[in-house]
Amino acid sequence: MDWIKDGGITSPLDFIASGINAGIKSDKKKDLALVTTSQPAAAAGMITKNRVQANTCVITAEHLKSGKARAFFINSDNANCATGPKGLAETRSLVSVLAGKLKIPPAEILPASTGVIGVPLPVDKIEASLDRLIAARSVEGGGRSAEAIMTTDTYAKEAALSFEINDTAVKIGAMAKGVGMIEPNMATMLVFLTSDIAISAPLLEKALRGAVDSSFHRLTVDGDTSTNDMALILANGAANNPLIDKADDDYRVFSRNLTVICQKLARMIVKDGEGATKFITITVNNAQNMAEADKIARKVANSNLVKTALFGEDANWGRVLMALGNAGVELDPTRLSIAFGSICVFENGEPVIPLPEGPLGDLLKKPEIDINISLGVGEASNWIWTSDLSYEYVRINADYRS
Amino acid sequence: MDWIKDGGITSPLDFIASGINAGIKSDKKKDLALVTTSQPAAAAGMITKNRVQANTCVITAEHLKSGKARAFFINSDNANCATGPKGLAETRSLVSVLAGKLKIPPAEILPASTGVIGVPLPVDKIEASLDRLIAARSVEGGGRSAEAIMTTDTYAKEAALSFEINDTAVKIGAMAKGVGMIEPNMATMLVFLTSDIAISAPLLEKALRGAVDSSFHRLTVDGDTSTNDMALILANGAANNPLIDKADDDYRVFSRNLTVICQKLARMIVKDGEGATKFITITVNNAQNMAEADKIARKVANSNLVKTALFGEDANWGRVLMALGNAGVELDPTRLSIAFGSICVFENGEPVIPLPEGPLGDLLKKPEIDINISLGVGEASNWIWTSDLSYEYVRINADYRS
Repeated sequence: MDWIKDGGITSPLDFIASGINAGIKSDKKKDLALVTTSQPAAAAGMITKNRVQANTCVITAEHLKSGKARAFFINSDNANCATGPKGLAETRSLVSVLAGKLKIPPAEILPASTGVIGVPLPVDKIEASLDRLIAARSVEGGGRSAEAIMTTDTYAKEAALSFEINDTAVKIGAMAKGVGMIEPNMATMLVFLTSDIAISAPLLEKALRGAVDSSFHRLTVDGDTSTNDMALILANGAANNPLIDKADDDYRVFSRNLTVICQKLARMIVKDGEGATKFITITVNNAQNMAEADKIARKVANSNLVKTALFGEDANWGRVLMALGNAGVELDPTRLSIAFGSICVFENGEPVIPLPEGPLGDLLKKPEIDINISLGVGEASNWIWTSDLSYEYVRINADYRS
Repeated sequence: MDWIKDGGITSPLDFIASGINAGIKSDKKKDLALVTTSQPAAAAGMITKNRVQANTCVITAEHLKSGKARAFFINSDNANCATGPKGLAETRSLVSVLAGKLKIPPAEILPASTGVIGVPLPVDKIEASLDRLIAARSVEGGGRSAEAIMTTDTYAKEAALSFEINDTAVKIGAMAKGVGMIEPNMATMLVFLTSDIAISAPLLEKALRGAVDSSFHRLTVDGDTSTNDMALILANGAANNPLIDKADDDYRVFSRNLTVICQKLARMIVKDGEGATKFITITVNNAQNMAEADKIARKVANSNLVKTALFGEDANWGRVLMALGNAGVELDPTRLSIAFGSICVFENGEPVIPLPEGPLGDLLKKPEIDINISLGVGEASNWIWTSDLSYEYVRINADYRS
């Protein structure tokens, strides 16, 4: 596997993209993106589990049913959510107009949005910009499309890698935006993936689900799930590998590489938190099963008391213990151990006394901190990536809308 | 029902209390409290559901089984938690020493603690202070005991009320400490109630459970539950009312008054948040059942994005919508409505356009804010009290231990 230098969403064969300002953002920054491939591609996606879903989520969920698509169409600065039946109808109509101009069925377009909830989408401005958006598409436009999906991200998040399947070169490209601490108004995470691999839609979905589960589902910033979250993938087969239509070795190679690129983007997302000063990995080992390990890691990661202690570079393991005890998982406290990095602070139910405050202090000053928890009751492990809770988080989120 | 001016834990007949410094707090502030009644009283309690429990929680849970007790014994500044088998044995021994001095069985003492986790309790210092603690007890000592259970509370939380049952005057007294945003290290909430009513232990427990469910269980500051939370009650029968041993009208009068005093203390706890600038009530109406209404209200109350918006006095109802959609409750978005106070911002699935920004701004500047959510699918309601998320919360919690 090799990373493609400066690669992105258009690195795989036969993908072009554009990003322009359509007047949704008032400051002339790019706010509208289009990514297309020339033929119908295998398509799969995972969409927010929030019970309130953006209009674009509703439409993309419908369009994914066929397992075929050939375009991502994304706007930033407006969530296109909670705008009533009129908002949904206007969005459908906008997608149809774009489809007409691209000469493809509307069902082959997967729309996505991010931004403020409850503000009607300025469909007239967007419609008036479609010709310009279409004309601007190119292989070089990948970077511009990644810019156009940003809200308060400090940089565009892109990656691409290549690998071989039976001597055939295959590429995966990606762009992503946002999340939680980064994204003040929502916690929207949008992830777009492209590949030139030939794979059936059901296996593409299976691979995406596995990759997301080991990457974007492993991160939490504030425990909130946006109305707009999506991870979408198109695989157009342009690499001309023998079609992958069963879970064989070729599938596993693709699946592993898809996980690698998703993990890279997930880490970028956590690190780009405007308020984040630390990248924190909470690992739970020796659990009875992965689901329980996940529940505990997530509870610790989402505890404001743990997050503020880490911002303060304080080895306050009592808060970690308190938080993990609240996960709703049965525990044997006498088998519990907690370590910061490799420094054990609580072992088999007893505190380490005295704490090695010097080495602990050095460890907590670092930008990446590992908290390792052992439950001592089984063999399963799981982890969560998160960030700390800083003054900056409060400032951004208190000031955003107004 | 009448509030007793300056009343507290010793307002009911035959309760005395003391609060002293035993050297646990290094700054000479009070850190040890004792509340006693002369004869075995009906006793009931609710103890933290955290899977990790303080030594004092373990012992109090055992002692509550008999339904009889006559003393609360509380220390602050040390959670007496996660100190291994030695810590538990030392605590049992300390309680036995106190019991010997009071000439009562150890099982009649209900110990409680609040403070930093994982630091062994200085049992020698405490044991050396017991004679002084016992000698200091008086009716006037109620205020000093309330002071002794404080950690970072800005004032001692006390209340007492009186009412009549069949022309017999009955009193309930109470003291409480802490919680969440107030209490940086943990989220410990300790509540101690006394009454001179004559009531059987099972009915006392039933009444306590009902009162806590409508008061302390209605508040959340950061979603964390301490290893040390407790609400305990002693009822000594000194009022000489006919014994309440069934859920009759007399029981209901007591139960209602117990709820009233618990709600008063719960509101004090939320308002005393050092970081809190707002007292927020999230009400969910027209739900299918109370449990679903509770889940939604709690999810909104614990959303950092909602809490920071309220700190910023921003009517960002999109975040409320996002948070309630994440509660894991099935919703019909077309029936959802959201109001700040009486100002509707989202009605039956559609945004109110334009928002009345002037009146909304005035409303959000107030110290108490109501958010009213209607699900439009049933008749059930529930509510949660919470506070906002401020810079001060981060400062306190980032700086505390070190």
